Amino acid sequence: MDPQNQKRRVGIIRSRLRDKGLHGLIVTKSENVSYLTGFAGEDSWAIVTKTGLYLLTDSRYTEQARKECVRTTMVQRAGKDPIAQAGGQFLRKLKSAGTVGVEKSTSIGMFEVLRKNAGMPLKPVAGIVEESRNTKDVDETADIMAAAAIAARAFGEILQQVKPGITENELAGALDFEMRKLGAKNSFETIVAFGPNGSRPHHRPTQRKLKTRDAILIDFGARYGGYCSDITRSFAFGTPTPAYRAAYAVVEKAQAAAISVARAGADMVEVDAAARAVIRDSGLPVYGHGTGHGIGLEIHEDPFLKENAKGKLRAGQIITIEPGVYIPDKLGIRIEDDILITATGCEVITSECPRMPILQR
Amino acid sequence: MDPQNQKRRVGIIRSRLRDKGLHGLIVTKSENVSYLTGFAGEDSWAIVTKTGLYLLTDSRYTEQARKECVRTTMVQRAGKDPIAQAGGQFLRKLKSAGTVGVEKSTSIGMFEVLRKNAGMPLKPVAGIVEESRNTKDVDETADIMAAAAIAARAFGEILQQVKPGITENELAGALDFEMRKLGAKNSFETIVAFGPNGSRPHHRPTQRKLKTRDAILIDFGARYGGYCSDITRSFAFGTPTPAYRAAYAVVEKAQAAAISVARAGADMVEVDAAARAVIRDSGLPVYGHGTGHGIGLEIHEDPFLKENAKGKLRAGQIITIEPGVYIPDKLGIRIEDDILITATGCEVITSECPRMPILQR
Repeated sequence: MDPQNQKRRVGIIRSRLRDKGLHGLIVTKSENVSYLTGFAGEDSWAIVTKTGLYLLTDSRYTEQARKECVRTTMVQRAGKDPIAQAGGQFLRKLKSAGTVGVEKSTSIGMFEVLRKNAGMPLKPVAGIVEESRNTKDVDETADIMAAAAIAARAFGEILQQVKPGITENELAGALDFEMRKLGAKNSFETIVAFGPNGSRPHHRPTQRKLKTRDAILIDFGARYGGYCSDITRSFAFGTPTPAYRAAYAVVEKAQAAAISVARAGADMVEVDAAARAVIRDSGLPVYGHGTGHGIGLEIHEDPFLKENAKGKLRAGQIITIEPGVYIPDKLGIRIEDDILITATGCEVITSECPRMPILQR
Repeated sequence: MDPQNQKRRVGIIRSRLRDKGLHGLIVTKSENVSYLTGFAGEDSWAIVTKTGLYLLTDSRYTEQARKECVRTTMVQRAGKDPIAQAGGQFLRKLKSAGTVGVEKSTSIGMFEVLRKNAGMPLKPVAGIVEESRNTKDVDETADIMAAAAIAARAFGEILQQVKPGITENELAGALDFEMRKLGAKNSFETIVAFGPNGSRPHHRPTQRKLKTRDAILIDFGARYGGYCSDITRSFAFGTPTPAYRAAYAVVEKAQAAAISVARAGADMVEVDAAARAVIRDSGLPVYGHGTGHGIGLEIHEDPFLKENAKGKLRAGQIITIEPGVYIPDKLGIRIEDDILITATGCEVITSECPRMPILQR
C-alpha cells in the first residue's frame, strides 16, 4: 500500500473518532485491519489512537507483518494468551484518558474479556472504517479491476473443459486452479450448478456429472491483492430449451435495466426496483436475494442493494448487479457483473467475461 | 446426518440448558447450526427450545435447508431484513417464560439488535454446543478419516508436479484441484512455501518459482462432509542440506515425543511440553504456536494444545500434532499429522500421507 494513501486513510479514521469523542479505536475485523495497516494475515487487531497505530499480532505473523505493514508499530502477544486479553492489557498500558471505541463486529465474548482487562470505558461502534471502504480509492479500484480481469480470463479458459461427465466439483476446481495460475485465488467458494441445482442460489458443488442439455450456472470470483471480483454466468450445454431462452432474456433485461439507472446520486432502492420490475412484469418469480452488493476486501460489503435499501449510490463505489430467476428443482439463471459507479453512470468492469457462450455438445 | 444421532445431540444441548436454567439457545455460529440441524449453508441461525428446533434462514437457502435439515422447523425470514432483527421478532412470538441463551461468538452489534427485538431476557453463554463437538461421534470420525484419506491421496498425486519453475500459487492450486476431483475441497487456504518462505508459519502462496535445492513446506487439508483434515509436510527439492536434515530430524523427534504421550487422560500441557522439550534441548528455536488443536467442523477447534493448556485429553478427540522449527528468512520445517485419541494411546489417521518424499531434481 502506498504510504501516503495509508496516511490519508488513518487520518480520516482519526477525524471520525474526534467527531464521536472517542480517544481510540480497537479494530478487530480483519479486512479493516488490512485496510489501515496493509497487514494481510489473520488473528490480529489494529489499535488506532490519536497519535499511534499498532498491530497486535503473534509470532506466527511477526515476519509477515514486518514486510506488509505500513507506518505501524508491532505489538507481539504471546500465542498462548487470548487476543482479547492481550488487547485489554495493551489498552491498560496506553492509559487512555477517555473512551475507546470497539468495532461492533467483535464477539460478545471477546468484548467481555477486553473490558475486563482494559480498565477503561469501552464503547461498541459501527461502520467507522467501513464508511471509508464504501467508496474505493485508486489503488483499490485497480486491484478490483485486476481481479475482474483474472476471473474473466480464467472463465474463458475453462469453457473447453465443460464436457459431459465432468462433475460440478471438478469444474469448480478447474476454475479455481486457473485463477491460481494467473496469480490470484477464488474470492469465495466457487458455485457450479448443473441442471436443476441452479435453482439454489447458494448451491455448493457436488459430484453430479454434467449431462447433455444441462443448464449450467457458475458464480465465482478472483481475489487479487486482497480485493474481490464476483461474476455469475448462466448458459446451456448445447441448445437451450425455449423456456430457458425466454427466462434468460428476462434476466438479461432485468440486469440491463438496473445498470441503466445506476449512477452517483441514484436511489439504491430504485436501482434494485428497476431489475425486480422486469422480472415481475414477465410473470416469472421475483428473486428473494438483493440485486447487488459492494465488493472490495470483502466479497459482500456496503452498499447493499435490496428492496428496503436506504441512501444513494456514490461515485467510486464498486457493486455487483445480479438479478436471477429460480424455479425450485427446475431451473436457475443469474447474471452478475461488477460495475464502477461514476458521476454520469457506471462502467461494467467484467464485460470481458463471455456471456451465454455457445458450447459444442 | 443420522436422525437418531441428531436427536441425541439436541437432547444433550437441552439437558445443558436445563442445568443452566435457560429456556432456549440462539445458535449463531454456522458450525454449531450445522452440528444440530444438518444444514450446511450460511447466514442462518438455529434456535433450540425445550420442545422445538428451528432454522432461521432466507430464500437463498430454503431449498437446500429442506434437503439437508433433520427434524428441524424452517422459519423463513425476508432477505431484506437483518437476521438479528428477524431472530428477535421470532423470539418475541415464542413468548419464552424465561431467559434464553445467546452464543458468545455472536457480535456485539447483532446481540444489540436481537435484544431490542426479542423483548425477553437474553444471556450470553459460551461452549454449550462446542462442549459436545469436543469429542467426535462415529459419524464425525468417519468423515474426518475420509477427509484425511483424500488429503493424503491428493498430496501423493501432486508430487510429480513439483518441478523447478512451478510457482507456490500453481502448486497450491494443483493440490486444491486434486482434492476437488476426489469429491472434497480444501479445508482452509492451502499454504505452499518455497525456500525461506517456509519460516512464516502462515505464509500465503505467491508467484515465487521453485528453485533447485529449495526446501518446500505444504500445509493443507481436505473438507469432506463438512469435516476437516489438516496435514503439513516439509521436504527438500533434491538433496537437503545437512542443516535442513538435522532440523528435520529434530522436528520429527518432537512430533513423535508428543504422539507417544497422547492418550485419554494425559494432561494437555504435558503433551505440548513433550514436543517443545525436544526442540529446546536441540538448541533450535522453540516454535511460537501451539503444538496442536482439535479438528472437526472447524479447522481449529477445542481442544488447543498450548503451553498454558488446561485439562486432559479425552477419548474420541481428534487433534493435530504439529511442532516446527522456524529460522526467519532462512528455513521453516513443520510436520503435522492428525491423531484420534483412544483410551490407551492414539491412532495417527494421516499416516498414508508420504513423509519427506524423495524428489528427482
